[in-house]
Amino acid sequence: MMRREETMKIFAGSSGKKFAGDICAILNTELGQSETIVFTEGNIFVRVLETVRDKDIYLVQSVALQPNNEFMEILFWIDAFKRANANSVTLVMPYFGYAKGDKKDEPRVSIRARVCADAIEVAGADRVVTMDLHSPQIQGFFKKSVDHLYAVPVLCEALDKLNLKNVVAVAPDAGFAKQVRKYAGRLKASVAIGDKIRCGHDEKAEITTIIGDVKGRDAVITDDFTITCNTLADIARVLKEKGANRIVACVSHLLLDSNGIEVLEKSAIELLLSTDTVPNFEAQKSKRVRIVSAAGLFADTVKRIHHRESVSVLFEDLYN
Amino acid sequence: MMRREETMKIFAGSSGKKFAGDICAILNTELGQSETIVFTEGNIFVRVLETVRDKDIYLVQSVALQPNNEFMEILFWIDAFKRANANSVTLVMPYFGYAKGDKKDEPRVSIRARVCADAIEVAGADRVVTMDLHSPQIQGFFKKSVDHLYAVPVLCEALDKLNLKNVVAVAPDAGFAKQVRKYAGRLKASVAIGDKIRCGHDEKAEITTIIGDVKGRDAVITDDFTITCNTLADIARVLKEKGANRIVACVSHLLLDSNGIEVLEKSAIELLLSTDTVPNFEAQKSKRVRIVSAAGLFADTVKRIHHRESVSVLFEDLYN
Amino acid sequence: MMRREETMKIFAGSSGKKFAGDICAILNTELGQSETIVFTEGNIFVRVLETVRDKDIYLVQSVALQPNNEFMEILFWIDAFKRANANSVTLVMPYFGYAKGDKKDEPRVSIRARVCADAIEVAGADRVVTMDLHSPQIQGFFKKSVDHLYAVPVLCEALDKLNLKNVVAVAPDAGFAKQVRKYAGRLKASVAIGDKIRCGHDEKAEITTIIGDVKGRDAVITDDFTITCNTLADIARVLKEKGANRIVACVSHLLLDSNGIEVLEKSAIELLLSTDTVPNFEAQKSKRVRIVSAAGLFADTVKRIHHRESVSVLFEDLYN
Amino acid sequence: MMRREETMKIFAGSSGKKFAGDICAILNTELGQSETIVFTEGNIFVRVLETVRDKDIYLVQSVALQPNNEFMEILFWIDAFKRANANSVTLVMPYFGYAKGDKKDEPRVSIRARVCADAIEVAGADRVVTMDLHSPQIQGFFKKSVDHLYAVPVLCEALDKLNLKNVVAVAPDAGFAKQVRKYAGRLKASVAIGDKIRCGHDEKAEITTIIGDVKGRDAVITDDFTITCNTLADIARVLKEKGANRIVACVSHLLLDSNGIEVLEKSAIELLLSTDTVPNFEAQKSKRVRIVSAAGLFADTVKRIHHRESVSVLFEDLYN
Amino acid sequence: MMRREETMKIFAGSSGKKFAGDICAILNTELGQSETIVFTEGNIFVRVLETVRDKDIYLVQSVALQPNNEFMEILFWIDAFKRANANSVTLVMPYFGYAKGDKKDEPRVSIRARVCADAIEVAGADRVVTMDLHSPQIQGFFKKSVDHLYAVPVLCEALDKLNLKNVVAVAPDAGFAKQVRKYAGRLKASVAIGDKIRCGHDEKAEITTIIGDVKGRDAVITDDFTITCNTLADIARVLKEKGANRIVACVSHLLLDSNGIEVLEKSAIELLLSTDTVPNFEAQKSKRVRIVSAAGLFADTVKRIHHRESVSVLFEDLYN
Amino acid sequence: MMRREETMKIFAGSSGKKFAGDICAILNTELGQSETIVFTEGNIFVRVLETVRDKDIYLVQSVALQPNNEFMEILFWIDAFKRANANSVTLVMPYFGYAKGDKKDEPRVSIRARVCADAIEVAGADRVVTMDLHSPQIQGFFKKSVDHLYAVPVLCEALDKLNLKNVVAVAPDAGFAKQVRKYAGRLKASVAIGDKIRCGHDEKAEITTIIGDVKGRDAVITDDFTITCNTLADIARVLKEKGANRIVACVSHLLLDSNGIEVLEKSAIELLLSTDTVPNFEAQKSKRVRIVSAAGLFADTVKRIHHRESVSVLFEDLYN
Repeated sequence: MMRREETMKIFAGSSGKKFAGDICAILNTELGQSETIVFTEGNIFVRVLETVRDKDIYLVQSVALQPNNEFMEILFWIDAFKRANANSVTLVMPYFGYAKGDKKDEPRVSIRARVCADAIEVAGADRVVTMDLHSPQIQGFFKKSVDHLYAVPVLCEALDKLNLKNVVAVAPDAGFAKQVRKYAGRLKASVAIGDKIRCGHDEKAEITTIIGDVKGRDAVITDDFTITCNTLADIARVLKEKGANRIVACVSHLLLDSNGIEVLEKSAIELLLSTDTVPNFEAQKSKRVRIVSAAGLFADTVKRIHHRESVSVLFEDLYN
Repeated sequence: MMRREETMKIFAGSSGKKFAGDICAILNTELGQSETIVFTEGNIFVRVLETVRDKDIYLVQSVALQPNNEFMEILFWIDAFKRANANSVTLVMPYFGYAKGDKKDEPRVSIRARVCADAIEVAGADRVVTMDLHSPQIQGFFKKSVDHLYAVPVLCEALDKLNLKNVVAVAPDAGFAKQVRKYAGRLKASVAIGDKIRCGHDEKAEITTIIGDVKGRDAVITDDFTITCNTLADIARVLKEKGANRIVACVSHLLLDSNGIEVLEKSAIELLLSTDTVPNFEAQKSKRVRIVSAAGLFADTVKRIHHRESVSVLFEDLYN
Repeated sequence: MMRREETMKIFAGSSGKKFAGDICAILNTELGQSETIVFTEGNIFVRVLETVRDKDIYLVQSVALQPNNEFMEILFWIDAFKRANANSVTLVMPYFGYAKGDKKDEPRVSIRARVCADAIEVAGADRVVTMDLHSPQIQGFFKKSVDHLYAVPVLCEALDKLNLKNVVAVAPDAGFAKQVRKYAGRLKASVAIGDKIRCGHDEKAEITTIIGDVKGRDAVITDDFTITCNTLADIARVLKEKGANRIVACVSHLLLDSNGIEVLEKSAIELLLSTDTVPNFEAQKSKRVRIVSAAGLFADTVKRIHHRESVSVLFEDLYN
Repeated sequence: MMRREETMKIFAGSSGKKFAGDICAILNTELGQSETIVFTEGNIFVRVLETVRDKDIYLVQSVALQPNNEFMEILFWIDAFKRANANSVTLVMPYFGYAKGDKKDEPRVSIRARVCADAIEVAGADRVVTMDLHSPQIQGFFKKSVDHLYAVPVLCEALDKLNLKNVVAVAPDAGFAKQVRKYAGRLKASVAIGDKIRCGHDEKAEITTIIGDVKGRDAVITDDFTITCNTLADIARVLKEKGANRIVACVSHLLLDSNGIEVLEKSAIELLLSTDTVPNFEAQKSKRVRIVSAAGLFADTVKRIHHRESVSVLFEDLYN
Repeated sequence: MMRREETMKIFAGSSGKKFAGDICAILNTELGQSETIVFTEGNIFVRVLETVRDKDIYLVQSVALQPNNEFMEILFWIDAFKRANANSVTLVMPYFGYAKGDKKDEPRVSIRARVCADAIEVAGADRVVTMDLHSPQIQGFFKKSVDHLYAVPVLCEALDKLNLKNVVAVAPDAGFAKQVRKYAGRLKASVAIGDKIRCGHDEKAEITTIIGDVKGRDAVITDDFTITCNTLADIARVLKEKGANRIVACVSHLLLDSNGIEVLEKSAIELLLSTDTVPNFEAQKSKRVRIVSAAGLFADTVKRIHHRESVSVLFEDLYN
Repeated sequence: MMRREETMKIFAGSSGKKFAGDICAILNTELGQSETIVFTEGNIFVRVLETVRDKDIYLVQSVALQPNNEFMEILFWIDAFKRANANSVTLVMPYFGYAKGDKKDEPRVSIRARVCADAIEVAGADRVVTMDLHSPQIQGFFKKSVDHLYAVPVLCEALDKLNLKNVVAVAPDAGFAKQVRKYAGRLKASVAIGDKIRCGHDEKAEITTIIGDVKGRDAVITDDFTITCNTLADIARVLKEKGANRIVACVSHLLLDSNGIEVLEKSAIELLLSTDTVPNFEAQKSKRVRIVSAAGLFADTVKRIHHRESVSVLFEDLYN
């Protein structure tokens, strides 16, 4: 009989190598051997290089900066593991980029997150582990169980070190109004919410405003991700105008592109905190960016899953 | 060849008779004949009393005040129509009570809306029509297409008649912060959002506050539904304290029970507007309650679906 | 490695607490902690209160006197356990009320037992344990395996104590003609079958008769369940007229309502034997009702399933 | 736009040619062109020889005297039609031999009828038409709709011509006790039921008896099918002993093999009536066998299905 | 009632615009209005800009030079059309790049074509039209019907104009040995097949050879696609060595990259014929490349599908 | 806790008894007890005679000389094991006869191998083990994992003993051109391929030819199976004409019927080598036939699967 530890095997997709490696280092285990080949015309081919028969596979890869390549690769990995007779495949997808497409808020569009969930399940995934989905409902797009982690503990630990005073947690818009409460609770902060108001005759012109009291407070703008940094910078500007003191921003997933870095560096934002769920090596170099690793959180989660322990216990304070 | 009109047939579940009848009256068609028998021990039995072979069935029933009976009955109807060789079954579920169970915001609970969606689809429904789901993501719980209607147009038409001035649209909590914008847009109103703050030493004690400016304004508190009226009354009280003028409330679905009516009548709420998606005949009698019929909206939708016309065109202003 | 005993965990739905408790007492194990909340408007919410990751769950609840509430609750429990990463969920449903809806014997009705089976399977149940289904074919409505128990051994053990002589086992109608043979075989009894004959000019008027010899015999009327007791009382009357001696009745599942108790107490039936698969605490108080517990049978079954032993061995004499 | 008649196309499997041809003759339409090739080693290959794009296909074949060949051929036909872009495939399976395997009445056997139903549905059939299934519950093994026909009308019309007097309808055993009532109702007959009694010390020895009154009556023994004629002959002998007058037998599906013909011709059965759902050309030659064609019934059914008319109306008297 | 023509609507994915436009021009219809937005981080968003309720949609896009983007976009389109209540979605995928991954010819790899087929079907496609799949078995990876076209007629029509004499059709390797016969039959040519032989002590070193007679003949090297042109150039060299006269190559799908063009232009290949199924605008500029449009073939196919005519009739000569 | 060895249980279908028995003998285990009953009219009934709860079942049966009976029996076995609560069912199908139907190379035919794969999967098989499928793509017809074995090692070991010199491996036609390379590689042989050429005015007349050099060589004709031996004999004749020396044939699966034996014995084939995957006891008696047992290969595979070891390692040389 194999011992429980022997059945666990962590693998990484081509863009998850760094993060998976960090998890393996923490868990003191070897990353599974595999290779991904991308042909000239873009076709992806994956190959598992060691026996996985009856193993419990944890496949680590985000859908982030090359979302379509990363997603297709995930499907192929799942299939390869299942056809190689793995006992189970747990998809560890620290950031799930297509979660943004979670509703049909205009006619004749796709609910892309559900399309992706179905493709993942039909490929054969047995379970999903992810962090800070765009909306909590997305768990329900999966029929398989989803272990949903929160960046709040690791990010707030880093925020604590900044010695912010009289903090207000700011949601950039109504869509994040509910989630911002988790930060407010942990930071014992009040809440403010960004809003857009149409102005003048031109129906399209909008100005940003903030609902709630921010004067003289240190503000933490929070969101699930940022690409262009525009919204964050815009909110920061209004916060400044309304008399906020220090302004930091805090996002779970860092997709910042080169334009975004520029926007950040010109903005009123003192520091942008984020995790390493996205392999965004460029953005991590900016002085205004500070990365906190979520690898420990994921390592703990994988260990708990594999050893049949509760994962929710890690987030007990966050459930209301 | 049957003409298009001849293939349409509207049926009602036992608690949808009134609403379906109103739709039929508007569309100048007969309600399909059927009967529901509830045995002494609670077992439900349904029987279609006319041929439905190759007809397009529109089955009208909310999951509301007897949600489990109503839901099981829906499953049996769908099966009965499919086994009787209906061409298609469109479930017209004006209110979907289990939509509230749309996420796993604490450990080891069920995502009940997905459970219900799966049961509806496995029973054989081809399409769903519903109104103001608890969150827009729930459309993605269904694999089949969902025509999602909004009560905003019918409710705002009624609000217009109240001659409110300098209106602020109020979301009772962050969860409704996004949806309140649809009202604000239509009413050219500003936005305020209710919030709960923990106070004192007791972590459990919470006081209600309001983020945003309400002084001297007429306030419209909006929500998707109310049962106890407690939240609405609480917000109304704070609005009053903060200097709001007239206060009306506006919910899409009226589940108010007898206690709720009492709460309403003692509250600062001048009038509670709602639609008739829930057959809540008791609550409709209260003088503080005003019902606006959504039957016209659903009749128009069914007609458009059946005649292959756009439904989204009805809500063009609401998509941002 | 967990030992086999540690992976077993028995839970109860809200109406299965008593029966599950009895099973747990026999197996010397603690009932799993969980709670069911029913909101004012009827919405059910379930919550598992302990970690179930990788456990084999046995969920105990009949679909009986509040069939729709009980059934929906079952679906939500299954989903909650699966999303909480249980290894397997075995639905122990001692009585499955919707099994009655097992065929389409008139046009345009639903086969409700199949609708329920599909909903149970799509929710994620891995296996079903039940007793005396309305017809044995219902096992085939499930794709998952069904362990089907028989009440015959426990009921006949109780019958033995009544010292009946020269016994005839009576099926109230042709529908139970096949099952009555299991009793006849065990009791070494002959068989008689109730029948309805239309009489006179009125096509609707029917009189009950009995096919087979009953004169001078002690009769045991058997059926799978009774609600109103009308059929049993009617048969008992004719048995008396035809010269039967003592008359007892014997049903697997006791759904008797208050009217039924009255009918029973006015009838020629000396005693009505049944099991405790239905939590029918009212009916159990009647002096003419005697309850034999099936908890031992279910406890034995759960133990055998969990320890990979044969269940069919318990009923060897009953297979012909 | 094709007219409704143009979309209907009837095809036959290799053993359904005669029956399908009779249906086509009645409906005044050409049988679809196709061929079945059986290779030396038993492999079956099917080929549709005319365009079926967007046609509604009615495929006629029983699963009868070569049940495995016939069943596999059906699966291949369904796939061929679907891959050739037929609009729908209705499987017209006048006799479904594996319906006998409808329950698990002993441990570790297969529910073969469900296995077959699943294979038919996964191959792509859209609807099934069949006659006198072994038990009515089998409709519930299919998720797709089943039009279930009864032979009672055509067989009773033939029975009428025999001028039977004071008729008793006899079910050979308890398993057919419920169905025999349909004959009794139509023939205004009383009912009797065959039973087996164990005798003496040898538990295995059984003697046949009859429950119910048969003396001086003309008896019609009814069953869904017969292969060996043994049960029918046995019952006939006891009927004779108990003083029955004329004895005829009546089965829906005629599977009689050569031994069975011999048994029949030596028995007390004056005449065995059956339909032509099974292409049993040998048995049809016996003088004691009389075949009544069910092709008219199936032709009427196919026409009604195709023209969206009620099928159940054909059997109105048979629903109780 | 809509006329048949009115229900047809052709749409294009972002890389299928040119090809779809050509089809529409031939069919004298407007291309459906839609837009694809690619966000900075690579996320794709699609939007249908006109009502498609109850329309039959033909979505045109190859999976070719950006296979992952193109594939994901296809999934989103299908979902968008289905959720917008299209009557049917036919995926017209002239080149299906992942068809190459059609088998598991080494351990622990994915069968990528099946993964893709499942994702397409679960997204909701009703039918697929494609051309010259890497192997004909791939049709069986789809459960839905596949209309499989051949480039042979259009390519051979172009070959005819080259006045080749005494032609030998050459398969570059055994994998194409079967398909080359379709060319040989149409061109009345003999057949030769490329082969690799290991040589010397080094097991890895292989030399190309040709099985079959080529001396003094004009050679047409055929394959389903080429990216690098290496294999074709290699075979051409050996053909030259073995005394072949003129040498042309002929591939169904043109994926040639810039290196490939160079290889081609330095090779013994006089001309490379291909179709326009891949939007390879760069390669089409090479003087050695000649493109023959397959748009006519696809237009004819779409028209036939929509008007319920046979598609296979277009390729009658190619079936053996 | 059961030890790993105790959970393995090998069963045989009615035509797999000999082969399964050989596997069991090698693995030193008892064949599981079961029985198959074939009723007079052809109906198959299967019964497992020992407890299989939570066992890992390996069911051995080819689909070969009575393919439809054998296939249906397989479906029933799988269902019986699953309903008896087996932990897993691995279908060991040494020869899968319907693999020949793997494509739609003419209009309106079925892809029979996919139909069979779907039926196997819906019946509940968890994994398939088979050998030398007609084409490698068929693995992709299954969603479940397929362990695909090759006869090359066992057959080539037998070929080695024949002391063939200067060997050419011959594929009878282009369809086997790819697979013949596995033999050529192992035997260090060159390759030749059979071809058919149309001749004269009559388009139907074809003569066999051989592409490639065979003069003075010993030839090994290889194919996946043979029934009539016609193709092999035809190729042998041409090989002889073209100056080949010794000629042997080698097929994975031996379906040779009595005519085929005659053809073989009159042909230029010195010896026909094959395995025992097909229970073809008649053909094995011919002096020109030599059987090599594949039972060792399958025993090794089952053991490796059960003990979680690599199966692919057995064929390392065969992957290119």
